[in-house]
Formats: sequence, C-alpha cells, structure tokens
Amino acid sequence: MAWQTYLDREQDRFVQELIEFVRIPSVSAKPENVADVRRAAEWVAARLTAAGAENAQVLATAGHPVVCADWLHAGADKPTVLIYGHFDVQPAEPFELWTSPPFAPEIRDGRLWGRGASDDKGGMLIPILAVEAMLRTAGRLPVNVRFFFEGQEEIGSPDLPPFVRAHAERLKADMIFSADGLQWAPGQPQIVEALKGLVSMELVVRAARADLHSGLHGGGIANPAMALAQLLGSLKSADGLVTVAGFYDAVIPLSDAERAAIACVPFDEAAYLAETGAPAPFGEPGYSTRERLWARPTLDVNGLTSGWQGAGTKTVLPAEARAKITCRLVAAQSPEAVLDAIRAHVKAHCPPGVTAELIQNPGRADPFQMPAGHNATGIAAKALTEVYGRAPYRTRAGGSIPVMTTLLDVLGVHAVMFGFSHDDENLHAPDEFFRLDAFRLGQTAYARLLEQLGAG
Amino acid sequence: MAWQTYLDREQDRFVQELIEFVRIPSVSAKPENVADVRRAAEWVAARLTAAGAENAQVLATAGHPVVCADWLHAGADKPTVLIYGHFDVQPAEPFELWTSPPFAPEIRDGRLWGRGASDDKGGMLIPILAVEAMLRTAGRLPVNVRFFFEGQEEIGSPDLPPFVRAHAERLKADMIFSADGLQWAPGQPQIVEALKGLVSMELVVRAARADLHSGLHGGGIANPAMALAQLLGSLKSADGLVTVAGFYDAVIPLSDAERAAIACVPFDEAAYLAETGAPAPFGEPGYSTRERLWARPTLDVNGLTSGWQGAGTKTVLPAEARAKITCRLVAAQSPEAVLDAIRAHVKAHCPPGVTAELIQNPGRADPFQMPAGHNATGIAAKALTEVYGRAPYRTRAGGSIPVMTTLLDVLGVHAVMFGFSHDDENLHAPDEFFRLDAFRLGQTAYARLLEQLGAG
Repeated sequence: MAWQTYLDREQDRFVQELIEFVRIPSVSAKPENVADVRRAAEWVAARLTAAGAENAQVLATAGHPVVCADWLHAGADKPTVLIYGHFDVQPAEPFELWTSPPFAPEIRDGRLWGRGASDDKGGMLIPILAVEAMLRTAGRLPVNVRFFFEGQEEIGSPDLPPFVRAHAERLKADMIFSADGLQWAPGQPQIVEALKGLVSMELVVRAARADLHSGLHGGGIANPAMALAQLLGSLKSADGLVTVAGFYDAVIPLSDAERAAIACVPFDEAAYLAETGAPAPFGEPGYSTRERLWARPTLDVNGLTSGWQGAGTKTVLPAEARAKITCRLVAAQSPEAVLDAIRAHVKAHCPPGVTAELIQNPGRADPFQMPAGHNATGIAAKALTEVYGRAPYRTRAGGSIPVMTTLLDVLGVHAVMFGFSHDDENLHAPDEFFRLDAFRLGQTAYARLLEQLGAG
Repeated sequence: MAWQTYLDREQDRFVQELIEFVRIPSVSAKPENVADVRRAAEWVAARLTAAGAENAQVLATAGHPVVCADWLHAGADKPTVLIYGHFDVQPAEPFELWTSPPFAPEIRDGRLWGRGASDDKGGMLIPILAVEAMLRTAGRLPVNVRFFFEGQEEIGSPDLPPFVRAHAERLKADMIFSADGLQWAPGQPQIVEALKGLVSMELVVRAARADLHSGLHGGGIANPAMALAQLLGSLKSADGLVTVAGFYDAVIPLSDAERAAIACVPFDEAAYLAETGAPAPFGEPGYSTRERLWARPTLDVNGLTSGWQGAGTKTVLPAEARAKITCRLVAAQSPEAVLDAIRAHVKAHCPPGVTAELIQNPGRADPFQMPAGHNATGIAAKALTEVYGRAPYRTRAGGSIPVMTTLLDVLGVHAVMFGFSHDDENLHAPDEFFRLDAFRLGQTAYARLLEQLGAG
C-alpha cells in the first residue's frame, strides 16, 4: 500500500486522535495544569510508540517535561532529521468568548475548534502520522528520524537550553524541521528564511531623590521625564532611522535577490493599515514596509512610566522616568553589541542635570537566518511545491523564537519551519481552530519531505 | 492699657484657645469629617464674636462653609481691610508617624504640635487676637476690618469662586491680607510679591488601534511612545529653554531692580541640591537658579504613561502614549494663551505616522504679582520691619494660590500674604508644629499693621 493510501484511509481515526489530544488541558502557564502537561507528554510518548517510533520517553527538565523518540534504521548514509514541536498550550481564558469549550473540541465547517488545535497539537501530530503511514506501508523510513517535543514553549522554554545541552547526543541531527510553524495561506506555502533576534533593556533617568512639588522646584532642577523624552528621542531621527552609532554596523545588507524575493510576496498596505488602525506606515527610510517588518532591525519603546499617571492634574516634579526598550535584530547583529552601542549613546547624550542608567532586561535572542541555498530549505521548498502545486513564498518574520538559536548553538544546525497552521487561526485567542484539510495536506507534505531527504 | 500689654497678659489663654481649636479634626478632604469642619466654623464664628467682631456668621456654600464677620466703625475716611484664612486642615495620616497624636495637641520646646497648628489655625487666630486686643484696650480699631475664613482651602477651594462672586458686597475691601502665609525664617520676615500661575494639560499620541506585538509590527508603523518622546523633547531645547513659539511673549521681563531684589535673598545652591538630591541645577539659560524658581515660567512633565509598565519585558508596540504637562506662568502670561501656543506647536511638530491630541486638564491659575510700589505691600513691609527689627526679603513663590486671583478678579484687590508660619513646620506632613513665639509676634505685627493702615 502506498503511504498516501494509508493516510487517506486512516484520516477519520487521526482526527479523532487529535480531538483526544486537544481534550487534555496542557496549559503550561498555570500551576494547576502541571499534571495535565505531564499527561499530554505521556499521550505523545504512547502515540509515538504506536506509530512505530522507538525509545519514546518522557524526559524530565527543571520544569515541564520533554518527549523524545527516534527511528534510526535508514542507514548511516542517510541523513538524520530532528522534528520539533510542542504539546503545551496557551491559557484559554476568557472562556466565555469561546463558541464551544476550549477543551471540548468540536468540528465545524471543516475545522477543529479547541485550544491548541492549531498551536501546536495539530501541527506536532502531523509528522508522527506521516511516519506511521510510511512505517506501516513500507516498513521503513527514507531517513533517520528523531522527535523532540517540549511542554513549555508557551512560557518561553526556560528549561530548554540546559536540556538541549545535556541531551545533545540524543538530539544530534543533520537537519531540523519545526512542526510548529505557519503556511502563508491555504493554497500558498511559504519558507520562513529568517527570524529577528531580540535585546531588551530599560532606560532609567533620575534627578531629585523623591517626587517634588513642581511649583516649588520646577525650573530649579531638571525634569527627568523631559530628559528621558529628549534622550529617547535622540535614539531615532524624525524620519525613523536609528541614530545610535554602530547600531546598523553588523547588519548584512539586503541583496537585490533578497529584496526581489520580498517584493514577490503580495502586500496590501491599505489592508495592513486598516488591520492595525495606524494612520500611515512609518519606519526606516529607504525600505519598503515589508522590508522593514521582515528584514531590518528596529528599536521600539514598549513602555513609559513616570510621575503621576492617575486622572487629572498632580503638580509633581518626578524623581525618575523609565522607558522599556526592545530592539529586534537581523543577521549578523549581536544582542550584546547593540546593547553596548545604546549604552554608549546614552552615556554620550545624557542631558544635563540628570543621571541615566541603561539596564538589560530578561529576554534575548540572536537573529536567525537560514544560510542562502541551505540544503534543507531547498528540499522543503521542493516538497511544498509538489504538495501545493505552487512554489512557496520566501518570507521572514519579525518575531523571535529563542529555541531556534538554542538548537543552532548547541547542535550547529539551522531549523527549517515546516508547519501547517495559519495566522488567522486564533492562536493564543478564543476560538482557536485548525483547518482539517491543512492537517491532511501536512501529513502528505511531511511524507514527501522525508522521501525527498532520503533521495538526496 | 496698651494693646501690647493686653496681648502679653492674655497669651496663655490664647495658646489654650489655639489648642482647643486644633483639637477639632476639621479635615476637609474626608467625608467623615464634614461635621468637624462645620464645628470648626462655629468655633471660629463664636471666637470672632468673643473678640468683639460683629455679624459673625457661618455661611453656606455648595460644600464646606465660610465664616464672615466685620467691624466697620473706623469711619468712611479709613480703609477697609479684608483678612483671609482657613480653618480646615490636611488629613493627618499616617498617624503612626506622629510623636504626639495630631488632634491631641501638645506643647514641646516652645512649639505647639498638632495638625493645623501652623496651617492655618494658628495663623488665622492671630488677626482675631490682635483685633480683640485693640478693641478691649482702645475700644476701637484704626481701620474697618472684615474677616473671611474658609473651610475648603486644603481641597482647592472648589466652591469659593461662586461664593466670592455671590458675596462680593460683604467682602468689599480696599486691601486684602492673607493670614495663611509664611515668613522667611524666625527673625527674618518676607513679603511675597508674586505667585506663579498654572495651566495643566495632557498630550496623547496614538498610532495603532490596540497594543500590538512589537516583533510582528515594529518597523511597520510608528511607535507612539517614541513619537511622544520626540514631540515632548521638541518643547524644550537641550539647555532648558522652552522652544514653543510665543511661550515667553507675554512675560514681563525682570527689571534690574527685581533681579537685584532677588539676588539680595541668600541662596545656598549646594544646600538646595543636597535637599533635593539633584545632581546639578538646571533650567532656562541666562537666569540664576532662584530667578528661574521664582520669576521665570516653566514647562514640566508631571507624568508619563505608555504600554508595559510591569517588571521585565513585554514586547508590545503601544497603541498610545500620554504625558501630563503643567506650565507655571509669570505675569502677564495667560493660561489660555500658553495652552494655545503649545497646541499650535504640537500641531506643527507632530511626528509622521501618529496623531497627537492636547487636552486641557483641570487646574488653572493666573499668575499673581503685586504691582510695584503697591500701597498695602509698603505698609506691610513697614510693620514687619518694626516688629522684626529688620526689613523683609522681597520674595516670590513658584506655587499657585487660585484664591488670590479669585479675590483679584471679583474684588479688584491684590492680596498681601501676611502670615507667620515657616516652611519647616511640617505643613501637610506628620508632626506639624507652630512656633509659639511666632504666634505671639504675629499678633503684635497684625496690630501694628492695622495701626499703620489707619495712620495712612
């Protein structure tokens, strides 16, 4: 039997299994769901074994567990592929906004509705089912496969870096594919070629020891809120260029080919403005909105705090003013070098009459960019093209996924996003759903991917 | 008997009466003390009658009451003097920081300790006692006197403007003296020649409809917190000059004589910095720190609010950013004209990609400046010089006292501050106290003031 026939024949059972999986409220953020996350891990390990994977195990971390399994009988001349995904989910609150209960999944309109259906239970079940189909029909896989599923992605994977370091041998692979990922749209695949990095900081400006009466002291000493405004303002030009010396130094300029690839992806600026509600696009001069969103570094103020924030007037001269700042980075910027550059700028531009301190905040990620012509990318693109009947868009994302760089750091391998969710599926929101035709298409795509990888 | 002899002889009784007055917890800010404020008003009316004043009455307002009384038998050729003060007090919390309970006044070290002892129960009792001494000894006063005591000064006198307008005839006077006021230091009197005005506003900058993910949208549309910083920063030069076109237009320049008078008042800049904790003085170039504090208009940011203000990192692109701003104004600036100038600046300098709105906030006051050579000022200075044995400093204050301008607007008369508190007496703080020698000196000074006014 061809694996495709097996997939077609077993599809109803697979959907029932996904429903069963989604029923487990494996919310990693909530202490009361610790046992549910564990239960989901055990479900995954059992499902891997049922699919024919070997050595399926629930492995401990300092927090929620990891599940690993493998099938390594393709031969030493075949590549080893690591497949990543996660079985924990976002909290489902507010429950009252769900059409059907988040942990009592329902099928409506060809979609499965429930928390985690799309992010990432549907996604991570797909490669397991593809492997089952191949093992049940051909009795073997075209490549060696390792599975690596975690239970803490939705809380930032705090225990994953030490886990990956400790189990590097067990995770060793030639290529990594993430089953947590998006396609561009139903009918249009994509390959995500780059993710931005992140560095987070807080700028604190101080003058007086305590808040003072602005009538008695205004004009006598500096106002830290005004000084913060002027110092923050100096980080960017009026037209949106980051003016911190050295900020752009390590940025690899976009090649003409990269700009052309970005321009190939349709972008409706009017629709984007309507969606965000912003009056106009804005950012670094010389780049299209999509280039700025995808491929240029940014400096954003995430929050401001100073003095009186209640209703009406309080005539206070604040003692201090604070700004939260994050920069999104692109290859080959380093979070530490960017922080140093901003620190030097703050020191050089601190207004008179105040002190300014720049503190690094938690949350850092290196930018992640697939090397041009990376083998796994090419093969993934080929598999997607076959399954979808059209070539994938080459896209990038402004978000940061620290696990991608952890895997790169420890294993020395770039991960390719190979997932079948879509950004309209209410990920992290009420009424999350997963398209059942994408669930099915994804199984075929993973099987084709493994075939292509084995044929190489 | 000379009035001074009467004052000397009755001083112990006066102190006991002040203690009795301070015992009434007439906290205007707290609903549970409404009856106590009323009781204080009745105490004042009775005390005025006991002193020999006529027509003492508790008069209703929309909130806490007013007490009026008069003695108008000096003759039509003598001036009529209105004496102002207030019988309400600040809340006393936190009680545990008081050495003795706030409403169980105690004498220690020649000081009376209790809430309101200095602000303003001791102060407003002084002129009543001076009038009593003159009426009991001479049987008459050298001038016509009206008393005008209120019970809502500590909550901003919300019902006073309509009251003053409605009772303008009853308050009509040639001169006004405020018994709520400060002397420079024990042994050094002052005449406060000017108070700053106030205008309050909020600057709101908006871009997206809601807070967005800074990774997905940073670089695509403007960041309102950064735009607010740049717009705020444009209101002032790096060296502290307000750069809003027209801001200084109506300011009456300081004359050489005024600058000399300000320079005559000792100012220890190092001590000022040590007191505030600021690293350096800072403000409008070309003026001394004291000139800026007393006699130059200011623009201060009182608060900043935007996006994420909790601990750590939240990668949000805020939908809006807000700044609270107040300007302190000097003669002859108008709050409305300054607001219009800033509104025009905001409109002209609004960064691209955002909208900016300037909203007026409650709290406005015209600047208050005694006309140079004002008659009442000269006589007050003469009385202080006699009593203290040295000439008063001519000072100004950065604070705003709206009632001064209400009285000026409705009655057409400038009020002279003629009070005997000091700014180290823990006004509005735990362990408020009043110096009993200032209490006594003040009585003599008020009697001398009335004599001088009658001799004119």
